[in-house]
Amino acid sequence: MQQNPPSQFTRVRRAPQRGAYDLPTIHAILDAGTVCHIGHVIDGRPVVTPVFYWRQENQVYWHGSTASRMVRAALSQEVCLTVSLLDEWVLARSAFHHSANYRSVVCLGRPALVDDREAKLAAMKGFVERLFPGRWERLRPPTEREIKATAILSLALIEASAKVRTGPPVDDPEDLSWPIWVGRLPLHTTAGPPIAAPDMLGSHEPPAPPA
Amino acid sequence: MQQNPPSQFTRVRRAPQRGAYDLPTIHAILDAGTVCHIGHVIDGRPVVTPVFYWRQENQVYWHGSTASRMVRAALSQEVCLTVSLLDEWVLARSAFHHSANYRSVVCLGRPALVDDREAKLAAMKGFVERLFPGRWERLRPPTEREIKATAILSLALIEASAKVRTGPPVDDPEDLSWPIWVGRLPLHTTAGPPIAAPDMLGSHEPPAPPA
Repeated sequence: MQQNPPSQFTRVRRAPQRGAYDLPTIHAILDAGTVCHIGHVIDGRPVVTPVFYWRQENQVYWHGSTASRMVRAALSQEVCLTVSLLDEWVLARSAFHHSANYRSVVCLGRPALVDDREAKLAAMKGFVERLFPGRWERLRPPTEREIKATAILSLALIEASAKVRTGPPVDDPEDLSWPIWVGRLPLHTTAGPPIAAPDMLGSHEPPAPPA
Repeated sequence: MQQNPPSQFTRVRRAPQRGAYDLPTIHAILDAGTVCHIGHVIDGRPVVTPVFYWRQENQVYWHGSTASRMVRAALSQEVCLTVSLLDEWVLARSAFHHSANYRSVVCLGRPALVDDREAKLAAMKGFVERLFPGRWERLRPPTEREIKATAILSLALIEASAKVRTGPPVDDPEDLSWPIWVGRLPLHTTAGPPIAAPDMLGSHEPPAPPA
């Protein structure tokens, strides 16, 4: 199994038994999410920005405006890209042992700009197709101005780790008879009915929401 | 209306019409979320950590182990606390105009430690009650060891801003007749059936999941 040795930054220190460093685990968590939070240092201050991301092979990609402060900052320094998925509330008999089941990935590194035109188009296509399979070929094709205005960044999954909690609450043995409901409350993201744009012409089938 | 003047860090620059700086908007977004992403600078590198948060008055609170690196880092420097809620996918006729409807808050500042015992207990109660109203009084009460082991941090909502997108896709006028479905795909978080812990004794009613 491919394994990234943890660095002092990615080694899971709190609850180390929840840490994982193998790429299949890291890739699966990334593929289950859509939004990451990227930390930059701007003028010595941390700034955290939510962006959509997608993964291809061992790279995470995101996009921004070529004019944005976030893109400029990302290209001049290391960033931290974090994905967290909240799966279940975990309710215990004491406040202290309440927890949550979750999956998260943290990746540090210096992003690269995807500036080759064909690689950029392939990455854009990867973003759309990951969310809405089959949509890319049916869209009005990108113009040269749009391709120029879009910056695509990539980050290699090298200094990366996962952290996962599963299972029931773990209470202190002396609390087991405390009279209260204990267990897990699972959370799911579901899609509501699609809302067609008021200016849509004709009748078209809406795509399925991303899984 | 209470208004925080934007700083150079919280002023919304990309799509400035989506920016909001009034406290009612900022509070409402924070009250709709449960997980924030906090950016610290550790040894000059940005590190982004997902944590649960809650708001009381004009302060955001979170907790950690008093032994954790994240807590130590937060108390020695400024942090950036970001909350993002993804509401709808927004599908347009071109890849370039695809978007999302979302609500987000960014707050920078130096956190404070809540170290007065009564204030700490009040904050812990606020966290539990915000998620599961009525549960705090029914839990096994916190021990002194647990109170000591829990660090509660607070961040004042002073240098804070919100960013919100709503509404349908906005396509280029010349694309309006492109033959494809366009509109919004709403997302909802829903709760699955509660799963009682295998060691629960007796029969108890599960709480409702947080709204």
